[in-house]
Amino acid sequence: MSNRILDTIDIPADIKALSYGELLELAQEIRNEIIATTSKTGGHLASSLGAVELILALHSVLDCPKDKLIFDVGHQAYAHKLITGRRADFDTLRTYKGMSGFTKRDESIYDVHDSGHASDSLSTAVGLAVARDLEGGDEHIVAIIGDGSISGGMAFEAMNQIGQLQTKMTIILNDNEMSISRNVGALSLYLAKARMNPAYLSISGKITHRMSTCKNPVGRFFLRAGLAVKDSLKQFMVPGMLFEDYGIKYLGPIDGHDIRAIREAVAKAKTAPGPVIIHAITQKGRGYLPAENRPDVFHGVGSFDEETGESEKAPSGPPSYTQVFSDALIREAESNKDIVAITAAMPAGTGLDAFAEVFPGRTFDVGIAEEHAVTFASGLAIGGKIPVIAIYSTFLQRAYDQIIINVALQNQHVVFAIDRAGLVGADGPTHHGVFDISYLRLIPNMQILAPSNERELVDALHTALYLPGPVALRYPRGNGAGDEIPSKREVWTPGQSVLLKEGNDIAFLAVGRMVAHALEAAELLEAEGVSVRVVDMRWIKPIDEEAVIAASECALIVTVEEGVVVGGFGDAVLETLADKNLHTRVLQLGVEDAFVAQGDFKALFEEISLSPRSIAARVRTVFAQES
Amino acid sequence: MSNRILDTIDIPADIKALSYGELLELAQEIRNEIIATTSKTGGHLASSLGAVELILALHSVLDCPKDKLIFDVGHQAYAHKLITGRRADFDTLRTYKGMSGFTKRDESIYDVHDSGHASDSLSTAVGLAVARDLEGGDEHIVAIIGDGSISGGMAFEAMNQIGQLQTKMTIILNDNEMSISRNVGALSLYLAKARMNPAYLSISGKITHRMSTCKNPVGRFFLRAGLAVKDSLKQFMVPGMLFEDYGIKYLGPIDGHDIRAIREAVAKAKTAPGPVIIHAITQKGRGYLPAENRPDVFHGVGSFDEETGESEKAPSGPPSYTQVFSDALIREAESNKDIVAITAAMPAGTGLDAFAEVFPGRTFDVGIAEEHAVTFASGLAIGGKIPVIAIYSTFLQRAYDQIIINVALQNQHVVFAIDRAGLVGADGPTHHGVFDISYLRLIPNMQILAPSNERELVDALHTALYLPGPVALRYPRGNGAGDEIPSKREVWTPGQSVLLKEGNDIAFLAVGRMVAHALEAAELLEAEGVSVRVVDMRWIKPIDEEAVIAASECALIVTVEEGVVVGGFGDAVLETLADKNLHTRVLQLGVEDAFVAQGDFKALFEEISLSPRSIAARVRTVFAQES
Repeated sequence: MSNRILDTIDIPADIKALSYGELLELAQEIRNEIIATTSKTGGHLASSLGAVELILALHSVLDCPKDKLIFDVGHQAYAHKLITGRRADFDTLRTYKGMSGFTKRDESIYDVHDSGHASDSLSTAVGLAVARDLEGGDEHIVAIIGDGSISGGMAFEAMNQIGQLQTKMTIILNDNEMSISRNVGALSLYLAKARMNPAYLSISGKITHRMSTCKNPVGRFFLRAGLAVKDSLKQFMVPGMLFEDYGIKYLGPIDGHDIRAIREAVAKAKTAPGPVIIHAITQKGRGYLPAENRPDVFHGVGSFDEETGESEKAPSGPPSYTQVFSDALIREAESNKDIVAITAAMPAGTGLDAFAEVFPGRTFDVGIAEEHAVTFASGLAIGGKIPVIAIYSTFLQRAYDQIIINVALQNQHVVFAIDRAGLVGADGPTHHGVFDISYLRLIPNMQILAPSNERELVDALHTALYLPGPVALRYPRGNGAGDEIPSKREVWTPGQSVLLKEGNDIAFLAVGRMVAHALEAAELLEAEGVSVRVVDMRWIKPIDEEAVIAASECALIVTVEEGVVVGGFGDAVLETLADKNLHTRVLQLGVEDAFVAQGDFKALFEEISLSPRSIAARVRTVFAQES
Repeated sequence: MSNRILDTIDIPADIKALSYGELLELAQEIRNEIIATTSKTGGHLASSLGAVELILALHSVLDCPKDKLIFDVGHQAYAHKLITGRRADFDTLRTYKGMSGFTKRDESIYDVHDSGHASDSLSTAVGLAVARDLEGGDEHIVAIIGDGSISGGMAFEAMNQIGQLQTKMTIILNDNEMSISRNVGALSLYLAKARMNPAYLSISGKITHRMSTCKNPVGRFFLRAGLAVKDSLKQFMVPGMLFEDYGIKYLGPIDGHDIRAIREAVAKAKTAPGPVIIHAITQKGRGYLPAENRPDVFHGVGSFDEETGESEKAPSGPPSYTQVFSDALIREAESNKDIVAITAAMPAGTGLDAFAEVFPGRTFDVGIAEEHAVTFASGLAIGGKIPVIAIYSTFLQRAYDQIIINVALQNQHVVFAIDRAGLVGADGPTHHGVFDISYLRLIPNMQILAPSNERELVDALHTALYLPGPVALRYPRGNGAGDEIPSKREVWTPGQSVLLKEGNDIAFLAVGRMVAHALEAAELLEAEGVSVRVVDMRWIKPIDEEAVIAASECALIVTVEEGVVVGGFGDAVLETLADKNLHTRVLQLGVEDAFVAQGDFKALFEEISLSPRSIAARVRTVFAQES
């Protein structure tokens, strides 16, 4: 039998009855639970460990679900999940049909919004605050945002309105000096100075709230004169002034692992008439030494040995697409000094960390700032450089207008290296990269390459660097097939596909990772006596019209893509056939018009009927009607 | 013969030889030219009048095109155009095949980027600065950004990097307290305080630069003690501190109409090792009384009487779609207290100014902050409100990820009232709203309505407010046909079209304004003995499958939409036909895969072959092949 306090907590109100000592014990139990579970399931360990006390302190002074607690990104919310009735399901974290790794409205009344993409909590929170004000309600609205997320432009847009409206709400700035990797940017330096505030340093462990009035700094100066002034007045002015300039009262910095300090600060914030920001200093990975030491590695992990923190994944196996891209880009940059690389806070995830080691002066991490990343690239291109933006498909959505106006309209040679294009697995619907084919294809001047394996990725990158104008190349999360990378690189001719297998009954026109699925499906069908052609289209835009025309001689064309059907590659085939007045039957396979769940690749490809077997089954049915 | 100095200026270097008195004279000549020309052509009068001295001062100390001058939005750059060899073409401003109303790379080597969308100048500039640093160049990079534009999130993302890199560049903050309408937000209030800086007020007309070191504010305090300190130290600290917190040296505020002061400030900035921001106070509409008095009206104007400033457009004629939307939304909100309206700095352009007069507490202008606008709406929807975002199609691109993740994934009932959907005319390629059908159609849960006239707009809005989930309704710039608005409103059944005209040879499936073009084209074709069906599809998503199936009995289906063909409404028809295994020939009419030029509607519809006559001609050719 468990003697855990955690097992007595079914709703957050249950923790209000706990003594301070019991709360500390609960915090430790939650840490143990998070470590034990994620060591098996994998997950966002380090962020969640850093936010345990924040979450306990908040739930002990708030009345959720009446009060609203909004998490930014949401991968730090595991403690919140554990005390909001989801303890029993915690071991299903991030699995197929299991618990989401982020907050999710469908999952709990305590989850206010579907989190996953950074910097959206303040905007969501001010929306809720305004709705409350219009209704005359009195619920309290609290947003927890990391120091990485708050550098995203949307957060500043939100602060601009919050400061103007002066609506009552509390922002917890969860400052751990990291987003996924170490934070960058002037704001980060600013917060670092704030952390050096002597008031915080000298009274460590004790809350040192300082509700600036923004009215009388001279008075404050003399009030503070008794404290150990280090260099100048500036050090007092600095911590909150930037936020107070936005009209948001600043409180802190405080120790984000001191439950009493947090509670006191939140209680104080609740009494303020307008918006308050509480600057809480936390440690990513707190309480688990391996994660404290390597918070970037433990940001998002697979299963690991709980004792040692060693990853349980065998280090063997073919390299990932990311790895192949990383190696290939370094090689390209060695012979072309104009190539520069840009990441938006994802140096490790995109493989640009290795590039940065070789070319530190040619690597730019702009922080969580995708809009800026793309326009910055446009400026670099105007200045004669060849910028390569390595970015996840789902986050490129953030810079859509910039792709259109700052890159495509000006026909700038910017290379979009789109990683995680297609299904991503455990991160689920907020992270699947299933829209990029469609949203990029409609942009004039845009060229889109979809290499079907890691060998092709190397050539696709080489081609993208060589072509004028904007070029996107998309490649999936996961490992390649282990093909050897030839030393000689090819420049592909735009709009030229590769016929992989001749056949006369059915023609598979496939792109990216789906080429392999099509080949497998073709084998299954050929075993039944059907003649199947398989074409690796390589180019989504421009499309190989000749290949489409040739395929129209078959009884059935099957388009296969790892992305939404609507507006996608299959539509390009339909457009071509319509334009050529060809009337072959077409079966469009891809992601149907719905958001895709989380889970392992195998389960997901079955769910969306894109496993080789499902593909064969669907094609079989349609082909039977034709013959 | 002209005695104008302006007529002797062919390149900006020519102004370097001018005396100060001649520069002042030139400024006046430029003002006269801008007023005289825009009174005939229309244009962005007020902003350009406000920036004359800034531009002259900058060009007199910079060496363009080696040095780079980057305009944000770019509609304030008329003076720049007049002194960079484009004087003779100035009267073609914003006309078909004429001079762009924004900076445009194709037009001049002095135009660094294609401007049009706000807040992109800092990102572009830092890209150029980094490219320069990598090349070891010494050109100076200057970005001019308005106080409206700088509130956009991307500008803050850029400052975050600029402050970190400490690359040498100059930002001119052109502060006229306005974007198009009066600015909103905390930043605006902050700048207002900065403008009250006694150092600026007391030495008016004279430059009062103050290069803050950010190191020793106490020293600065005593240094400044000789000046008339009004309330506290804060008033000195405030002006630049927000920018200095970002690591950007602050200089100002200065009088943005004092050429000497600007030159002195820019010269100073050029000697600084890192980034400098010069806060220049300007007056929108400066030097033209009607524009000074009504800068919002003179932001973007049609032709007007130069003497009086009276608009020359006859006030008669049918109301615009914007007007009809505005009236209809007010009516809806009268009977539904949950309806709230959001604009991103466009209250007048979207018609929400009238809504704000009736429902001030239910109207939210978030400034130039489209990302925040959409997520804010999502928060309001979670809070039980029915938010209506009135926004131009082209600017909605800025919030693409937010539409997907914060609205559609969570299936929030947010209404997107998409104005300027389709061609916009004189503003040209940066402003045409020709992508929204395609980029919205691919988003799961999204419903898209395209009313074909102003009567339908009223019903479409009524329907959108009634349906659950996200709904977009798109309507064009310009006037309706003058149809009477019935008092009774209909809730449309999702995916139900209206058969306007029966016919058996050709079926036009059209959406939005193109329904009228299809009807006209049908008349032309019927005169030749062809039987033409015309369907007002109304719904882009979900599409009326029955109507498509019925149309497949004709020899030819023609899809007509005011948007890009790629991924658009026509593709939805192709998808439906493929899915139903129907093989009617389809002709897809819409915007081809290229950016559309500027000009009047008539010229543009001819250029993209979407005038009724062009439509008839294209259909005639294809139909001839079928029969």
